[in-house]
Amino acid sequence: MKILSVNAGSSSLKFTAVEMPEEQKLISGNFERIGIGNSFYTLKIKDEKIKIEKEISNHEEAFQILMNELIDRKIVNDLKEINAIGHRVVHGGEIYKDSIEITDEVLKIIEDLSSLAPLHNPPAVTGIKAAQKVVPDAKQIAVFDTAFHQTMEPDQYLYAIPMNLYEKYKIRKYGMHGTSHKYITECMKNILKTEQSKLIICHIGSGASITAVKNGKSIDTSMGFTPNAGLMMGTRSGDIDSSIIKFLQEKGLTIDEIDQMLNKESGLLGISEKYSDIRDVEKAMKSGDENSRIALDMFTNRIVNYIAMYYFELQGCDAIVFTAGVGENGCFEREKILEKLEFLGVKVNHELNDQIASFKEIQEGKITTEDSSISVYVIPTDEEIMIARDTYHFAK
Amino acid sequence: MKILSVNAGSSSLKFTAVEMPEEQKLISGNFERIGIGNSFYTLKIKDEKIKIEKEISNHEEAFQILMNELIDRKIVNDLKEINAIGHRVVHGGEIYKDSIEITDEVLKIIEDLSSLAPLHNPPAVTGIKAAQKVVPDAKQIAVFDTAFHQTMEPDQYLYAIPMNLYEKYKIRKYGMHGTSHKYITECMKNILKTEQSKLIICHIGSGASITAVKNGKSIDTSMGFTPNAGLMMGTRSGDIDSSIIKFLQEKGLTIDEIDQMLNKESGLLGISEKYSDIRDVEKAMKSGDENSRIALDMFTNRIVNYIAMYYFELQGCDAIVFTAGVGENGCFEREKILEKLEFLGVKVNHELNDQIASFKEIQEGKITTEDSSISVYVIPTDEEIMIARDTYHFAK
Repeated sequence: MKILSVNAGSSSLKFTAVEMPEEQKLISGNFERIGIGNSFYTLKIKDEKIKIEKEISNHEEAFQILMNELIDRKIVNDLKEINAIGHRVVHGGEIYKDSIEITDEVLKIIEDLSSLAPLHNPPAVTGIKAAQKVVPDAKQIAVFDTAFHQTMEPDQYLYAIPMNLYEKYKIRKYGMHGTSHKYITECMKNILKTEQSKLIICHIGSGASITAVKNGKSIDTSMGFTPNAGLMMGTRSGDIDSSIIKFLQEKGLTIDEIDQMLNKESGLLGISEKYSDIRDVEKAMKSGDENSRIALDMFTNRIVNYIAMYYFELQGCDAIVFTAGVGENGCFEREKILEKLEFLGVKVNHELNDQIASFKEIQEGKITTEDSSISVYVIPTDEEIMIARDTYHFAK
Repeated sequence: MKILSVNAGSSSLKFTAVEMPEEQKLISGNFERIGIGNSFYTLKIKDEKIKIEKEISNHEEAFQILMNELIDRKIVNDLKEINAIGHRVVHGGEIYKDSIEITDEVLKIIEDLSSLAPLHNPPAVTGIKAAQKVVPDAKQIAVFDTAFHQTMEPDQYLYAIPMNLYEKYKIRKYGMHGTSHKYITECMKNILKTEQSKLIICHIGSGASITAVKNGKSIDTSMGFTPNAGLMMGTRSGDIDSSIIKFLQEKGLTIDEIDQMLNKESGLLGISEKYSDIRDVEKAMKSGDENSRIALDMFTNRIVNYIAMYYFELQGCDAIVFTAGVGENGCFEREKILEKLEFLGVKVNHELNDQIASFKEIQEGKITTEDSSISVYVIPTDEEIMIARDTYHFAK
């Protein structure tokens, strides 16, 4: 069975076609600059990469081109072979605790949830509508970034603000990266041969979040009402004293300028004043740049802060997992983080840690010694496969 | 030697006269509603409490009345016996890392720091000026609430926002309750017979903060740029996703309304919707009120979160101390917090814990068993004595 896993942005459409249940990726790619001129798309088939420039005025057109490519390149002989399309949707609010088949009602609710994710839910709706038109025979499935965290209890997801703000506007912690945290949770179930475990999953990319998973369920996560909460990120501040906003408004900044600053000019970039990529920060630090040294310390300290909180919330921990860009490749950062856990009996196998990265021979594995009090793993995340897996569940 | 320890608010003046170095409190009291009509003052001498109604139009008048009372009640025979007056000043910025004798230059700096503490530094200045006029022979000492935390390193006190905001406006973590945290640190030095220790001090009152103290120095604390950061408090939210502010502004609330809400209508009050006092919340919870149950769980969970972070930052911990209103009296809350630390080997002596409270026979002591992995103490804080002690240091 062939499943299409798609992720629609305001001017982009990422996709992966997956053979299920084998989970074999057949083709993937990305349509970019849709509707804003100079559009193009890229395709990746096995090791071959292709880039094609072509005017694409909307998502429907992108889907049409995609279908033609799938047939031309003999991924499918007939569009009917595509049994289902799984759509990444950022916000499922409190309603969707799992993936769901998209009906008119579901689509309406996803649109309504745009108030909670104004930048992300509207393009997802556009993508879904385009897919429905171009591939009407396929089941359309919504896979939510928030769904995995819907197992949190009220005392974890509520903020200590007036309860009526939760009741009226649904202001609460939702968390993000749920598809990735769920994928890693399933990987760990296979590795540990049980779901009965306490996991701390560190999804550290340019966006970053940490989740405490108990017996397969998210019990707490570091992102909040929005993705700018918790950890220090590439350009996002993460947690700050919220009263700073009032102070800056009184200094003459508008709320939009402040929001832009906290999301795009903060984090590693704000402190290093030069780099939003941890690799650049690490390099500058090693050359003696003091701001980069502080940025890197803050970045890793915050990760340790959340590991600490979740270690207590879980009442101990069986395994810590690093995933996503920095988690998969940042050998130096992993080492720095785990150094702060040595007092608990965590023992890093430094050689193994240095060997594992996506650009090296080994991409995943355990990086602690056999007698380490907590096992630490590096596992590449795969949101596309997770979307395909959830989608397959509805289509099979 | 007689020292006066004072704390001036915008319409109040609290004071304690202390015999030093014996640290014996001679008299204490509070002038209230200064300059706003219906003013009065209270005095406490040993177990006697007196309330006197009298129009008091400004702080200078309050000081004058205070001096007359000290003479009338034979606390001193001559005002010259008051060698020094210690003034509580909330904000010492980055300049004051310790208490200091007030000169014209110091007073000017305290005034300038009002931008960081607009509600608190101006009345302190008023109090200092009044004291200088009425008791010109006494040394005037400023004791800052922020000073004890000035030992934090940049990677702990900086926020992950653009570095120029720190350089231009000094936006950073300052922390508060420093006088209390310092007092407890000194108590623990006596109890443990060494300063070489790792302490987590939980000052839990209607305002609340937790400090990690390593070898006598604050290395991190939960309050931030302002007092509304960190823990959930009586009416303050503590940490929230700061993007909530933009969301609420877009819903039509002004920044002042939001600030008011986060400081005065949040915390225990916001969640329970009825009570800002933990005793009331606890009572309501025990009668089955669900919102109070959630409020109490959130309140104690947040405390555990910070204990967790500081346990890791300190790389272990010798002692945890509870102090201030809730810390000294909340037997139930202490029990609930420490329950979450049992997995680390913390063993509460339940009987002792129940016996210690300010209104019971025993007011302080250790509440863990001898084989507990971390010792936990209850110690009443005494900011007045700490101010007197710092002040005495300059006067002796």
